[in-house]
Amino acid sequence: MALIVQKYGGTSMGSPERIKNVARRVARFRAEGHQVVVVVSAMSGETNRLIALAKEVASSPDPRELDVVISTGEQVTIGLLSMALQDEGLKARSYTGAQVRILTDDAHTKARILNIDEAPIRKDLDEGKVVVVAGFQGVDEHGNITTLGRGGSDTTGVALAAALKADECQIYTDVDGVYTTDPRIVPEARKLDTITFEEMLEMASLGSKVLQIRSVEFAGKYKVKLRVLSSFQDGGEGTLITVEEDNNMEQPVISGIAFNRDEAKLTVLGVPDKPGIAYQILGPVADANIDVDMIIQNVGHDGTTDFSFTVSRGDLDKATKVLEGVQAHIGARSVAADKTMCKVSIVGVGMRSHPGVASKMFRTLAEEGINIQMISTSEIKISVAIDEKYLELAVRVLHKAFGLEQAA
Amino acid sequence: MALIVQKYGGTSMGSPERIKNVARRVARFRAEGHQVVVVVSAMSGETNRLIALAKEVASSPDPRELDVVISTGEQVTIGLLSMALQDEGLKARSYTGAQVRILTDDAHTKARILNIDEAPIRKDLDEGKVVVVAGFQGVDEHGNITTLGRGGSDTTGVALAAALKADECQIYTDVDGVYTTDPRIVPEARKLDTITFEEMLEMASLGSKVLQIRSVEFAGKYKVKLRVLSSFQDGGEGTLITVEEDNNMEQPVISGIAFNRDEAKLTVLGVPDKPGIAYQILGPVADANIDVDMIIQNVGHDGTTDFSFTVSRGDLDKATKVLEGVQAHIGARSVAADKTMCKVSIVGVGMRSHPGVASKMFRTLAEEGINIQMISTSEIKISVAIDEKYLELAVRVLHKAFGLEQAA
Repeated sequence: MALIVQKYGGTSMGSPERIKNVARRVARFRAEGHQVVVVVSAMSGETNRLIALAKEVASSPDPRELDVVISTGEQVTIGLLSMALQDEGLKARSYTGAQVRILTDDAHTKARILNIDEAPIRKDLDEGKVVVVAGFQGVDEHGNITTLGRGGSDTTGVALAAALKADECQIYTDVDGVYTTDPRIVPEARKLDTITFEEMLEMASLGSKVLQIRSVEFAGKYKVKLRVLSSFQDGGEGTLITVEEDNNMEQPVISGIAFNRDEAKLTVLGVPDKPGIAYQILGPVADANIDVDMIIQNVGHDGTTDFSFTVSRGDLDKATKVLEGVQAHIGARSVAADKTMCKVSIVGVGMRSHPGVASKMFRTLAEEGINIQMISTSEIKISVAIDEKYLELAVRVLHKAFGLEQAA
Repeated sequence: MALIVQKYGGTSMGSPERIKNVARRVARFRAEGHQVVVVVSAMSGETNRLIALAKEVASSPDPRELDVVISTGEQVTIGLLSMALQDEGLKARSYTGAQVRILTDDAHTKARILNIDEAPIRKDLDEGKVVVVAGFQGVDEHGNITTLGRGGSDTTGVALAAALKADECQIYTDVDGVYTTDPRIVPEARKLDTITFEEMLEMASLGSKVLQIRSVEFAGKYKVKLRVLSSFQDGGEGTLITVEEDNNMEQPVISGIAFNRDEAKLTVLGVPDKPGIAYQILGPVADANIDVDMIIQNVGHDGTTDFSFTVSRGDLDKATKVLEGVQAHIGARSVAADKTMCKVSIVGVGMRSHPGVASKMFRTLAEEGINIQMISTSEIKISVAIDEKYLELAVRVLHKAFGLEQAA
């Protein structure tokens, strides 16, 4: 008998029929003797509908009141799922974030969980009940309703699993696990049986949408066994996200290939090549609340250099305006913008102990005539910025070069 | 400067534009220096939508979980109205039933209010805030969400006004006050400036849908000054519901005429005329959870009598079946059902001190050839059961006979 926390997203809660399917799945876990805590999202589309209503009544909705409104989406689904579970003959009980006392800070619409009172849940489980908890929401120390931001239900699931010391936290979604890369681009992409937290974090931060990045951090920190599964097919094992130290199998060199189309490059040309120039350029960009991703500064010649960095495409216009102000101030020649960029990354903890991964990546791309414009690396990731038109080609040739279509 | 509790129903909250209209009305009261607490219902149709969802996931939804689901309707509107008020430049703060701690018993879907903690509301009012409270909902002593049943938002408004000792409780609805009778039947029907609690109770129990009957009882008990107003027109005084003792003006004999089409008559024919027969007939009817309204037992001749009573039309088939079982048992001849009945009532505290009201009513109906089938009276009300085809005629001639088109 295990204690399992299961989290179901908005698609799994999308209709009465789907909610009944979830109830039947939970009933099977109960029949196997497991204790089950279920965390649910709002029905798909509901949170957006509520936000749209709020924007119709107020030009800039107050965050406290917005949380009051949008937290109702999960309150509806916990009630509906509890009824459906009872209809399956199970004992079940719902809790809002306030009722189970998921204590958060007071940062409305993006609150962080501080504490969970697991005692009432433990008591219900001991009485044979399925406990159904609203994801995405909590309550601050003054009793105000808070929400955790997009994808916050994943975080609720992991936080509950940590508080209850659950045997496993299962995240049910519309894919059946984490893939080596997007199967829409590489049909040979393979579902991973396991991936490490570090790799999953890199994949998530690089644009893989399977799990919310904060929930992965949380699971890693509290050593919660996390599994991604499909809510639309039964019997799959999904992908288990592991703490590396627990895993003695030989690691593959590369676990996956992530990519991000949402990149734009800015270059300040003819910058005087002197100390402090990076700060003079990037300081005003940061002040404008623009996140900078990759940065490159060429070695100068004849006393000037070119300075490039990438931003999200949505920030390109704002960043260009900031740089045009900076340009005159620092005596640079001009500013160039390029929004046909993308980023392709290979991720794998195995690269720590395998030299030559970077050169293999660069050679593979060079053989296809793909020009690398920028490079950024971490201990378990190498990213390159390339022209967007090469994205699919780059992902395919790298997937093949690192043998990702075969199990390690 | 007064403290005013305003309650807005689902129609007034029916769209973002209407919510903004309510915000502008509240702003005018604030501009006049009044403190305002607003109680709101869910957007019209929302509670029914949520109940329908519940019935799709479970054949017989658990009442605790149903309350979790349907209480979200008011949680959405308190947030939206608070945002809209802030958009008007006011300070505003929303409270769910649990947050303001509207303590109820644990009778889910029909809970009764036990206590309200008015301290946080008082504090907000003193800080110049408009306080927006969810109607229809509360919380039991264990923190479970409860709801008060249909029309429960009126009760929330009155209970808050009582707890805060508010100067007035204003119920905004889609009519501009209480009328002498339904203007769709009598175009000369006149809006009443005042009506007593007792009269309003009779009118409500006789089918006038302006106010929920429990809220009128509550207001009478706690001496809350209650006013019914239109949320769609400005400047009207509506109808003030008064404690009779406060009102020294001469009372009109009759204040209004109520009617109810939802009546059906059952007659047990040839009943042995002996003691205990009424109980033998009505006991099984009560056991079947059928409400009986008017009852008549004719004086017997040749040792038998006829026994008639009225029920709601929806209960007619069930009641007929019950009586067919009773018939053999008590040795009655047969059972007859008539669902073309209606009830017309005249209401007025003035009839206490004016004899002859009943005979005037009966004469008026007789002059039109309307046969009275049953009569029931209270201290301030006379009801007659007549054939439904005479309903409009009876209401019109009585309205004229008692001079209701002219102010008293």
